[in-house]
Amino acid sequence: MTAENPFHQTLDFIGYLDQLKSVIRQNGLWDGSRPENTAEHSWHAALSALLLAPYANEPIDVDKVTRMLLIHDLIEIEAGDTFVYDAQGLEMQEAAELKAADIVFGRLPEAQGAALRALWDEFEERSTPEAKFSKAIDRFMPLYSNYCNGGYSWRAHDVTQAQVVNICAKIQDGSSALWALSEEMLAESVQKGWLKP
Amino acid sequence: MTAENPFHQTLDFIGYLDQLKSVIRQNGLWDGSRPENTAEHSWHAALSALLLAPYANEPIDVDKVTRMLLIHDLIEIEAGDTFVYDAQGLEMQEAAELKAADIVFGRLPEAQGAALRALWDEFEERSTPEAKFSKAIDRFMPLYSNYCNGGYSWRAHDVTQAQVVNICAKIQDGSSALWALSEEMLAESVQKGWLKP
Repeated sequence: MTAENPFHQTLDFIGYLDQLKSVIRQNGLWDGSRPENTAEHSWHAALSALLLAPYANEPIDVDKVTRMLLIHDLIEIEAGDTFVYDAQGLEMQEAAELKAADIVFGRLPEAQGAALRALWDEFEERSTPEAKFSKAIDRFMPLYSNYCNGGYSWRAHDVTQAQVVNICAKIQDGSSALWALSEEMLAESVQKGWLKP
Repeated sequence: MTAENPFHQTLDFIGYLDQLKSVIRQNGLWDGSRPENTAEHSWHAALSALLLAPYANEPIDVDKVTRMLLIHDLIEIEAGDTFVYDAQGLEMQEAAELKAADIVFGRLPEAQGAALRALWDEFEERSTPEAKFSKAIDRFMPLYSNYCNGGYSWRAHDVTQAQVVNICAKIQDGSSALWALSEEMLAESVQKGWLKP
């Protein structure tokens, strides 16, 4: 099998995608048994968005949200995962991710690559209702897992409530209901000692 | 947080979904480094369907296919994964999976559970173009990974070409192009000794 035509190029890309299963996040499974990888996070986020769509602030095209969340972290195949509370890492992140996006989406047949790149750009810009809701889900998932597993990644990195609020408050741009619940979870997490005040 | 209202019930379900990351398949990653789990398989299949949609035999609603593949294996949280070449296991599988579907989709608020259950039933019945294409992708993924990792699960279970053809020929109901390619991959795999003739 060679990548001489669009069909084979797409199939090569599907093999390449497999590498996302080996990108390890700081975040743990809900039972805290191991860190999760970015492929399974992407599945969980896409399906959760489908289920939580009724709680979006604005009317959304939920299928677009699903597609967005399926591809939102593909650039990590090239750029790796940056922990959201790693300030130094985040500074370098934007440039690295843009470069990674060129590489990742450049591997697809042109029209297909351009369509997915446009979807990723939209996600990153966070100006459409779909992008805002996708980002809300993406931020909510690790908050929820930390709430369930006793602060797996928060405790490992001495994360404070102010840091989480700073990063996660944009949940409210996509879903006020989800943010109200997040605030309850954060308050309880501080009380239980999973998150620094 | 308690499951006293639909919002909290949906959130409980999202936490429950996390268990799919711990259902281990016989199939390996494309590089053969470890077996894959069902959550990451579901992500890979859903995204691959999106990319391979132009090669479906019939016009399909690709967003429906994506949703179908995101949820097609949820019942494994209750029923576990049955290896497709385990004839004895497959005999018990249908009843176990129907029971599992009642449990899994029964955990959601009624309307949401009924909608996902209908989608899962459609996938299982394989009569619509979307279900046929979803099943084609679901069958193609492990064939493709075995082709790339030198028969990771085929060699572990002494699988023969006739067994793979028997299980995977339904790929052609969803995509003739994908089945033609699969046949080439199988021939090469036999030649290389990854699959028994």
